[in-house]
Amino acid sequence: VSSRSLNTLNADLETFLSALLKVTGKDNLLTDSADCWSYGYDNSRLHHLPDAVAFATDHEQISAIIKLCYEYKIPVVARGRGTGTTGATTPVRGGLVLSMERMNRILDMDPDNRSITVEPGVTNQQVQDAAGEHGFFWPPDPTSAAFCTVGGNLAYNSAGPRAVKYGTPRENTLGLHAITGTGESIRTGVRTTKGVVGYDLTRLLIGSEGTLAIISEATLKLTPKAQSKHTMQAIYTSIDGACRAVSSIMAQPTIPCALEFIDAAAIEMVRSYSPAKLPEQAGALLMIEVDGPVAGIKHAVDEIRQAAQNEDLIEFINAETEKDVADLWATRKALSPALRTVAPKKINEDVVVPVSRIPELINGLEKLAQTHDIKIVNFGHAGNGNIHVNLLIDPDDSQQMQRADACLDEVFSLVLTLNGTLSGEHGIGLVKREFIAREIDSVSLQLMKAIKRQFDPHDILNPDKIFPA
Amino acid sequence: VSSRSLNTLNADLETFLSALLKVTGKDNLLTDSADCWSYGYDNSRLHHLPDAVAFATDHEQISAIIKLCYEYKIPVVARGRGTGTTGATTPVRGGLVLSMERMNRILDMDPDNRSITVEPGVTNQQVQDAAGEHGFFWPPDPTSAAFCTVGGNLAYNSAGPRAVKYGTPRENTLGLHAITGTGESIRTGVRTTKGVVGYDLTRLLIGSEGTLAIISEATLKLTPKAQSKHTMQAIYTSIDGACRAVSSIMAQPTIPCALEFIDAAAIEMVRSYSPAKLPEQAGALLMIEVDGPVAGIKHAVDEIRQAAQNEDLIEFINAETEKDVADLWATRKALSPALRTVAPKKINEDVVVPVSRIPELINGLEKLAQTHDIKIVNFGHAGNGNIHVNLLIDPDDSQQMQRADACLDEVFSLVLTLNGTLSGEHGIGLVKREFIAREIDSVSLQLMKAIKRQFDPHDILNPDKIFPA
Repeated sequence: VSSRSLNTLNADLETFLSALLKVTGKDNLLTDSADCWSYGYDNSRLHHLPDAVAFATDHEQISAIIKLCYEYKIPVVARGRGTGTTGATTPVRGGLVLSMERMNRILDMDPDNRSITVEPGVTNQQVQDAAGEHGFFWPPDPTSAAFCTVGGNLAYNSAGPRAVKYGTPRENTLGLHAITGTGESIRTGVRTTKGVVGYDLTRLLIGSEGTLAIISEATLKLTPKAQSKHTMQAIYTSIDGACRAVSSIMAQPTIPCALEFIDAAAIEMVRSYSPAKLPEQAGALLMIEVDGPVAGIKHAVDEIRQAAQNEDLIEFINAETEKDVADLWATRKALSPALRTVAPKKINEDVVVPVSRIPELINGLEKLAQTHDIKIVNFGHAGNGNIHVNLLIDPDDSQQMQRADACLDEVFSLVLTLNGTLSGEHGIGLVKREFIAREIDSVSLQLMKAIKRQFDPHDILNPDKIFPA
Repeated sequence: VSSRSLNTLNADLETFLSALLKVTGKDNLLTDSADCWSYGYDNSRLHHLPDAVAFATDHEQISAIIKLCYEYKIPVVARGRGTGTTGATTPVRGGLVLSMERMNRILDMDPDNRSITVEPGVTNQQVQDAAGEHGFFWPPDPTSAAFCTVGGNLAYNSAGPRAVKYGTPRENTLGLHAITGTGESIRTGVRTTKGVVGYDLTRLLIGSEGTLAIISEATLKLTPKAQSKHTMQAIYTSIDGACRAVSSIMAQPTIPCALEFIDAAAIEMVRSYSPAKLPEQAGALLMIEVDGPVAGIKHAVDEIRQAAQNEDLIEFINAETEKDVADLWATRKALSPALRTVAPKKINEDVVVPVSRIPELINGLEKLAQTHDIKIVNFGHAGNGNIHVNLLIDPDDSQQMQRADACLDEVFSLVLTLNGTLSGEHGIGLVKREFIAREIDSVSLQLMKAIKRQFDPHDILNPDKIFPA
């Protein structure tokens, strides 16, 4: 199937592959279907078999590979570790998967300028480890930080809990080295913390899901590690009480470095996993962390405790020991395995609404769950209004699947009505591209496609992603 | 001259102007040269007379105006208060200046979501005042904050001292409403603090100097005001000592909210203005501010004091009273008037280098000043490595002007050698466009121009700016 897809592109697969082999050498090329198989999916469980997998080794080699792809009009999908959830790295047209896993060198650790320059295959964790030795960290912290790569983080603008205080990759990247769809090289941005020379191509590439250029090197902006951190848990009788607390926490000056939310359905699910007994009447739970200098941390905890207070609060725990902290997080961390146990599959969305609209979102989601008879579990990064909405489904139940699709459609409508956005950090990929036109006006969409054509005139860089078919 | 420029564009000025009048009404249109005169320059003192000045009143009216300009191929330059320093708002081809001064409404103050939505003609100060009432501020703080507009701040990505801790407009803007060069409307970005749906057109427009689209509305991200602030001054015998202190201040966790630098030539110049006597052997001076919760501020001051310490430090003053603070800032604030007294004109650059390279930059600048026999005074935002390099000149001395041009050329080369950038916050406009190709590679420049063509196919939006002729 996939080599037929190549033929429709008027490319001679054999000729291309032998030219490619000369560029990569045999150690950096896979062409056997069995070898290529595992490079065809991501965490969305969608799968498309590539015709070949090449391992990127350096900037010049990538440039040579893309020049070949350009010449033969072969689709090429850059890939980190495939932890994305939207099918963005699945090679829908076959062609080449360009794996970055061997480009995993830290090129320059520069503590004096609070920056680190890395290859795209370096994992988020490697960056944290290298930066940590000098007292720094890189703010983006997706759940998959131990495995996912910086290249993938940049492709999706992936963030995590810390974004509420420290921002996403767009706020924490200084410059890029990249290769366009013609195989040409560009350097974007600066090596400094300020710069306004020419258009901002750095942020244009960040979040573009590999559709504009292949990133071969990134200079990341580091932040000094806080001297101390404090973890708290606040339990409310109602969703509404928890949401009001989120608003008042975000309206006072002490910005938490994590403000996570778990709804009643999720609490019910993890009740048995939680080492600390969760009260019977728990209707919603907040995990809150503050960080900063030791001298101010007690004051920060007091500020949060005060802002979290309202008539629906039934328990406020301030972790005093390392074990207390681990116990509090255990509830949150039990969620993913618990979800897997309860339902064979989940549709996991990461919609965002303005913080003040979270109560309306959660109430609306409850109604949609009832109307469509679909179990919905919500948790996520409340400080950013970024809620992970999980529709629990059984793919073998076709009637339920239809109801889930109808429900999801209305979830997106609800989010947009509330001035929200379809995705906070997962991106669009394949699974949400039919919804993008509901959020983005047609003139902007046309401009985005026009920009894509300038970077990638043969439409070979991750084609069929982001934009509606 | 300027109406001739219109004729060369094949436009019939009279027909265009009468069509324009129907859109704007006579109260929002100037066509008399005497009336238009003052809309032809900015703070660069360059001047080009526009054929007409229209006052923007709302999004729909701007759209109608740009549609006319598109039809008649009339150049159109959007303008705030003309405080820019690069000639970016001078209408080099004549045509229309679109003044934003009457679009000065705050449309939505949303403290619950830490955001404010404003029209582009609102001044930076108006934003600070409106946000301040709710305990917030907007981080960008150019020196001209009392007069300059948000539209201008976004066009240049203008920042100021606070950027070292709180970032530039690119880090502090959520979304825009704008009109492209065809008169079509786009909404970019989100109303939330996270979002990754489609390409980042928000940051693409920010810093594009009115060449891609006209911003009609901006939603800005607000930051809670710190509870307390502390101002310090550190005086060193040498430039080198001060620069080493900047590096060590930036390497520890307490990020100052201002870290300003003044060199020996500048100190000499303001000696007589300074209420506090500056020591004879002062070779460089740092102004440092920290902010944060009251509970941690003493600790922050101690951290800074420790990091500022080295064998070249001769005086460290920690302001205890409001009067002390005013006295310390008096030195810095005396600089601009003092410069005007000393030299009839200055070439004022705002280059940036990585913080660790500031000593090399300053030493290099001293050598260039000697070689070319040009007086250079340096001050600026040291925490970002953003140094305002002032070449003091007499425009009537043509030999000196030639030496200054040659010197400036070498200043830019030096900056690029040190991994720096030509501009931190002033932008390119007219005066630096011949240098842009030294910093930005030709593939990137071609891509930027191609992006411009997608937004502005008739090249009417602020033509001849940013890119080399």
